[in-house]
Order: sequence, then C-alpha cells, then structure tokens
Amino acid sequence: MKITRVEAIPFAIPYRKPMRFASGEVTVADHVLVRVHTDEGLTGTAEAPPRPYTYGETQASIIAAVTGLFGPAVTGLSPLEREVAWSRMNRTVGNPAAKAAIDMALWDLAGQALGVSVTELLGGYRDRMAVAHMVGFGEPDAMVAVAEEMRDTYGITTFKVKVGRHPVSLDVEVCRALRLALGPTASLYIDGNRGWTAAESARALRALDDLDLEFAEELNPADDVLGRRWLVSQSRIPVFADESATRPGEVTRELLGGAANGISIKTARTGFTYSHRILALCEGLGADVVIGNQVDGQIGSVCGAAFGAAFALTSRRAGELSNFLDMADDLLATPPVITGGHLHVREAPGLGLDIDPGKLAHYRQDA
Amino acid sequence: MKITRVEAIPFAIPYRKPMRFASGEVTVADHVLVRVHTDEGLTGTAEAPPRPYTYGETQASIIAAVTGLFGPAVTGLSPLEREVAWSRMNRTVGNPAAKAAIDMALWDLAGQALGVSVTELLGGYRDRMAVAHMVGFGEPDAMVAVAEEMRDTYGITTFKVKVGRHPVSLDVEVCRALRLALGPTASLYIDGNRGWTAAESARALRALDDLDLEFAEELNPADDVLGRRWLVSQSRIPVFADESATRPGEVTRELLGGAANGISIKTARTGFTYSHRILALCEGLGADVVIGNQVDGQIGSVCGAAFGAAFALTSRRAGELSNFLDMADDLLATPPVITGGHLHVREAPGLGLDIDPGKLAHYRQDA
Repeated sequence: MKITRVEAIPFAIPYRKPMRFASGEVTVADHVLVRVHTDEGLTGTAEAPPRPYTYGETQASIIAAVTGLFGPAVTGLSPLEREVAWSRMNRTVGNPAAKAAIDMALWDLAGQALGVSVTELLGGYRDRMAVAHMVGFGEPDAMVAVAEEMRDTYGITTFKVKVGRHPVSLDVEVCRALRLALGPTASLYIDGNRGWTAAESARALRALDDLDLEFAEELNPADDVLGRRWLVSQSRIPVFADESATRPGEVTRELLGGAANGISIKTARTGFTYSHRILALCEGLGADVVIGNQVDGQIGSVCGAAFGAAFALTSRRAGELSNFLDMADDLLATPPVITGGHLHVREAPGLGLDIDPGKLAHYRQDA
Repeated sequence: MKITRVEAIPFAIPYRKPMRFASGEVTVADHVLVRVHTDEGLTGTAEAPPRPYTYGETQASIIAAVTGLFGPAVTGLSPLEREVAWSRMNRTVGNPAAKAAIDMALWDLAGQALGVSVTELLGGYRDRMAVAHMVGFGEPDAMVAVAEEMRDTYGITTFKVKVGRHPVSLDVEVCRALRLALGPTASLYIDGNRGWTAAESARALRALDDLDLEFAEELNPADDVLGRRWLVSQSRIPVFADESATRPGEVTRELLGGAANGISIKTARTGFTYSHRILALCEGLGADVVIGNQVDGQIGSVCGAAFGAAFALTSRRAGELSNFLDMADDLLATPPVITGGHLHVREAPGLGLDIDPGKLAHYRQDA
C-alpha cells in the first residue's frame, strides 16, 4: 500500500462555552483535518490544532506545511515506513502539530490495513482511559458548577484547574471551593499556563498546600530557567512541564535541569511515534507523565485516549480527554462518549474515526 | 487470538570455532528455544541465550523462569497485549533473556497474525542492516585472517575486536595489524568485556590513538564507578556501555554519571519492547547506540537485524549480527545470509523463523 496524497482541510467548530486560561482563550476550534490517502482506498485521519501562543503554528501555516512539505515527503511511502517519514519530516524543524497529525494518520492507516486498533499496535494495555476535565477561568461558584456537572453527568472525578490569574488569591479561592465541593476523593491539579512568576507560584503553592493537589503544571514562564528550578526545589508537590518540554531534547533539559518532575505528553504535538519516545525517555529517567490536552476536538481526544490506553505508565493518571465536550459540534458521526469517568478506545481498526461528510461540508472553510 | 501455552526447549549447537573474550568463552551454544503457542495455531518463536557471567541466567534458570513464571503470566493474553505481559513479567526482577525471548515471540506472533514483518511493525526504516563481525581472541595473524575472510566472503567491513588481555600490548598489536591489513576504510572498534582496569584501559586507548577506532566498549568493570567516569572524561573516542547498562535505569545511571557516551542495545536481553525504550531514552539523552550481540545464534541474529533495521538511529552503525557464522549449525531451515556486508530482514510475516524439525529434534536436549 502506497500513500498517494495528503489533504489538509481547514475547519472551524464553535465552542459552546469558550475556554479561558492564562496563555489564551479559545472560542472557535480552527483546526486542520489531515487525511492521508492511499492507492488501496484506505484513508488515514487526524487533526492538527494550531496553537500560535505555544508553537507559532497557525491554521494557514499547518496547511502550508502539510501540503507543501510533509505531504510530499510521505507520498509514495507505505504507511508502515514511519521512520522514513520522520527522517524526511525532521529535515524541517518546528511545525509539531502538522507533523504529529501526519504521524497519527499513518498509524491510523496501519491499524486499518492490519485490522487492529492503534492502541493494540502500540501496546494494548487497556481498552479505556480515565478522564480528567479541564476547568477554565471563572468565578469559584461557576467553576464548581462545571466540575459538579462533569462529575454527575460523566462520572469524572479528576479535574485540572486552570490558574495563573492575579491576584493569586483568586485561583487559591477557586481550588479551595473545588476541594470543599468535591470532597477528599476527587483528584485535583493545577495548570498555570505560565501565568505567574516563580515567586507568585511559590506563594500560591504554599496557600494551596492543604488541598492535596496531585501536581502543578507550568506555573511560570518556560524560559524562566532559574525560577523554575527554584520552584521545583521547594515545591511539596510534583511540578509538570508542558509547553516547556515539547520534544525529547526539551524534556531532557527540563528534567535534568531540575525544572520539572513530570511531563505532559500530547499526541497533538508529538504524534504517536514521538509521544512513545518521550514516554520511554521519562520512564528511563524516572519521571512522571500525564496525557495532556492541546485544546483538542473529538479527533484529538480519540488520539489521546488511543495512545494513553496503550501503556501502563500513561494509564496511571487520568488523561485530559474531555475538552471536546465544551465544543458545540464536531466532525465525527459517532462522537466519543465518556461514561463512568472513562473514555473507551474505539473498537474499529486504526483510530476508528468516522468523519461525517455532512458535518465536514458544513464546517470546512475552504469550500 | 489467545496464548495457550509457552514452551521452553533447551538445545545445544556446537561452535565451529570457539569464541574467546575477556569475560568468558563459548564452545557450545546452550540456548533455550522459546515458543509461544496460540489457539489459532500460530506460534511465536525466539531464543534465549544464557549468559551466567553477565546476567546470572543459566539454561536451567531460563527454562524454569519461562515455564514457571513468565509463560503462565502471558497465557490467556492476546499477543498484542504486550504492556499487560510486561506488567506481569516485571513483578519478577532480573531474568532478562527469559523475558526478552517471550517479548520477541509475542512480536513474532503479532507480525504473523497481521501479515507484516516485525521490522515494519516497529518502524520500517530499511530492509537490511550493515553487519559488524566480532573477532575473538587470537594471535594477530589469525585475527587478521578471520577479518579478511569475513570481508572477502561476506563483504563485512566493520569489525569489533575483542580486547582486555594482558599485557595490554597484545591487543594493541592485534588492532594495529588489523588496521594495516584492512586499510583506512575498514571500521574498527574494541570491546574489553571488563578485562582491564581503568588505568590499563587508558594506556591502551593512548597506544591505539592513531588507529581511528570508532569507539571502545566496556573496557573496565561495570562497578568500577569512578574509574569509568575518569576513563570517559579523558578518552578521545566514545566509550560504549554494554554489560553495565542492561535496562533503562542502568542506561540512565551510566550516561548521567558520565560513565558512557553510547549504549549497546541487545534484543536478547531487552526484547523488542524495552530495546525500543532504551533507544528512545538514548535518543532523548543524545547518546549513541549500536546493535550488540549476545553471542547470538541464527534466531538471535535475525531478531537483532529485525530491530535494528526498523529505526534510523540503529541503522547508522553496523550491527553485530554475524556470530552465528562461527557455529557449526543451528535450528533454521533457511539460515540468515550475509551478502555485501548486509543482513536482510526476512520477508515473511513476523520474524520469519522457520525452525527445521529435524534439526530441532537433533539438537534439543530434553528428548
């Protein structure tokens, strides 16, 4: 089976409820659908979410990179020639979401061609992932209401609380309200999206000390080199790196520099192939991992769950797989369903992504 | 497809020519054939080579571990449930060759069931590996004759020279004779199998300085902690760890401790699953790798080539894949063939291991 062409389709899905966090806000998911076509009629699918505030990629740059660089680089290859594909794509630095989408579409094709799910191909640990829901900025009451709704409707008991606002007490108050409302068995952690200084972060961690938080993610800027080390050295909960550790070399620098204890793995930026490598790197270095969310839509959430469920280490923590619930609609004919706090891996071969032609026609922006 | 039982068959193949090196000598390959049977009639195959002087495993201990612990642990699983298999096997520490053989047999089964080679499943980088031949202890003329025969017969141009004898000048003389005989384009490196002290190793490296060696492997003892760091700090060629870095945690310790610049990856001790993780760990840490040889027979050599050819990084150096040439016979109906200095990945699904029933009956030791 040979790849014949790669398509990059811009599409936009409105949010039911905008997601606000320290580094930005999303009101519309202006993503790119990547489809890898083959001479045997199978099509591999993934989505690339542009995150200019983190990687510099835009919807237009992703389309240009996929159609101009990475699509031609993989055309003619078998979907199983992943190492050749990456050797060619790696000649161009950056563009993580564009490369990751192609990588995941290749895995989708491999699974379809071989008749097994991507989760089985990768490691086959479980058939589901526990889900953590991200709670965006709001008043304490509103954020508690969101968490309670998620718990009552979907059985979700792990929440990532977006923090990084000023004054710091605003977020402390929210976390306290969440802990009070959800009780001691709920799992809570915070994500600052680089909104605080190291000093503010330390003050916040002290004020949050009695709330039994699981860990804290990216509280201060990625280039705040000494501040991050100082924060880790005196934090009583693990500090996770996300935007500061987006590829293996950065993961090594952050962990060895003492600037993080754990790493957020996001298939949207490292695909399955490099997410697997980062996982092995973290395991080998004795660092914790969590399956993160790149403000993913349905397709991205399916990808995160497919990867996370494949391995024992990524299954230890709930993955951030519910952001799609905040979107008004999406492209899949069969949307992912979260029940009992879990997202099940789709049973169909590959990633099992059934794009609805009507929805795609409605939401695509190039026609 | 479910695993129904795992068989461990002791077998012994005589060497045409014993292999001698600093940590031991092999005159008979007293290996264990591991066969993983399924309810659909497919059988996954691998071999486990006991190396008591490195891992403490013996033929008897491998058979006991496979039949008593790891076989029952994987029985009932699908061959694709690798992460479950490893989670269970990891409850028992050590026993690397026994675990690795089961892991590789699972990959063999997966490839057979899916109709693709293990190399394609892992990454699909190339269809062959360049081969490095190990030259065991001998007089300079004899060692040169071996290398020349390998070059003329098989097109091999990379040689690993076993060193670690006393006086050090004995091995220096051999390396010089090899460089003179093979010319400047041959690729040479040395493996001390922990035979020298750090001081002797440093003297040897100085005496070998003009011979353009690629790297030096395990010159001094694995527990010679400070000596190894000192050696690396002043060596002008990279120092590779082998016996001192047999699992991810050890790889991390050696590399971060400054006691190695590169790692020998051996599928015989880490299977495909953990070899892949060690590769990702090394890539993430910026460390070099080579596909090593556990004094492998035909089956082990096929496994090493299947893994090495799958990835760009492992394909950069010749792999140590020709030890089986020194054995008088083996179990495969179609032995591996080295031509033009390369070992081709077998085209059949899985590992493509066709055990010859007559040879197995002849060489097995349990019937």
